[in-house]
Amino acid sequence: MSEADKDFMRRAIELAQRGMGSNAGGPFGCVIVKEGRIVGEGWNRVTSDNDPTAHAEVVAIRDACTRLSSFQLTGCKVYTSCEPCPMCLGALYWARPEAIFFAANRDDAAYGGFDDDFIYKELERPIGERTIPLANLLPDEGRALFDEWLKKTDKTTY
Amino acid sequence: MSEADKDFMRRAIELAQRGMGSNAGGPFGCVIVKEGRIVGEGWNRVTSDNDPTAHAEVVAIRDACTRLSSFQLTGCKVYTSCEPCPMCLGALYWARPEAIFFAANRDDAAYGGFDDDFIYKELERPIGERTIPLANLLPDEGRALFDEWLKKTDKTTY
Repeated sequence: MSEADKDFMRRAIELAQRGMGSNAGGPFGCVIVKEGRIVGEGWNRVTSDNDPTAHAEVVAIRDACTRLSSFQLTGCKVYTSCEPCPMCLGALYWARPEAIFFAANRDDAAYGGFDDDFIYKELERPIGERTIPLANLLPDEGRALFDEWLKKTDKTTY
Repeated sequence: MSEADKDFMRRAIELAQRGMGSNAGGPFGCVIVKEGRIVGEGWNRVTSDNDPTAHAEVVAIRDACTRLSSFQLTGCKVYTSCEPCPMCLGALYWARPEAIFFAANRDDAAYGGFDDDFIYKELERPIGERTIPLANLLPDEGRALFDEWLKKTDKTTY
């Protein structure tokens, strides 16, 4: 890990403090870097924006993708003040950066009252055993959407 | 499952078709219902919005939370045209609806070229064994953010 990596992480931590200080949301910040330059930043805004998806990483991904005019973070590094929750890690997998650095981990988050680990465990459970019930409905009509998609000739894949 | 449940799912499938037809993104739609009334809708907009987080469920969650002026989907039911990917399922856990209905499943999504199952498996792997490398950096400074959070007297928890 280079000094530059540490500087970017300190910036992510500073954003977490700033967001927490202004009551934007929880104590989380994130910086996205491409070729040594910051291309996206975010901090948690869940409670101020009424948006449960506005975690620091999601906000930073959206910021970077807007600035880069791309739906991919190819060649980017992500610096986040805390280990990503399943939502944010899933978002990062879709965005496909080249590396992810985190400071605090999921145990620290649990200590702070954020139950990321509970959600990690829920995702591993079979569909019928989760605390939020999931049920299958109209499976044939759902599957047919993918036949339409595969036949579509002018689609953009991702 | 009631006829009303099926009607809401058909609406989600219709949104998926509409989004696909207008080249907004992949073939996915979502409807959120509270007390029998639609309070949020979304379809995939990843490629048109340059936003890898703009899956149908995330778009619908943000729409419903804006309309309800809440960062929680208490008492809501979610109808999505496909089993949620890990990002979307994580988002739903943070939003806490009372039930989730899905039409197509993750195997159907893989058939259509959407590798949700790969991401599910990645999330279950230990941090050091994932295809996107994750590394820990400045753990003490990261953890200290939660000490600040716990001491903060005017915070909104979620």
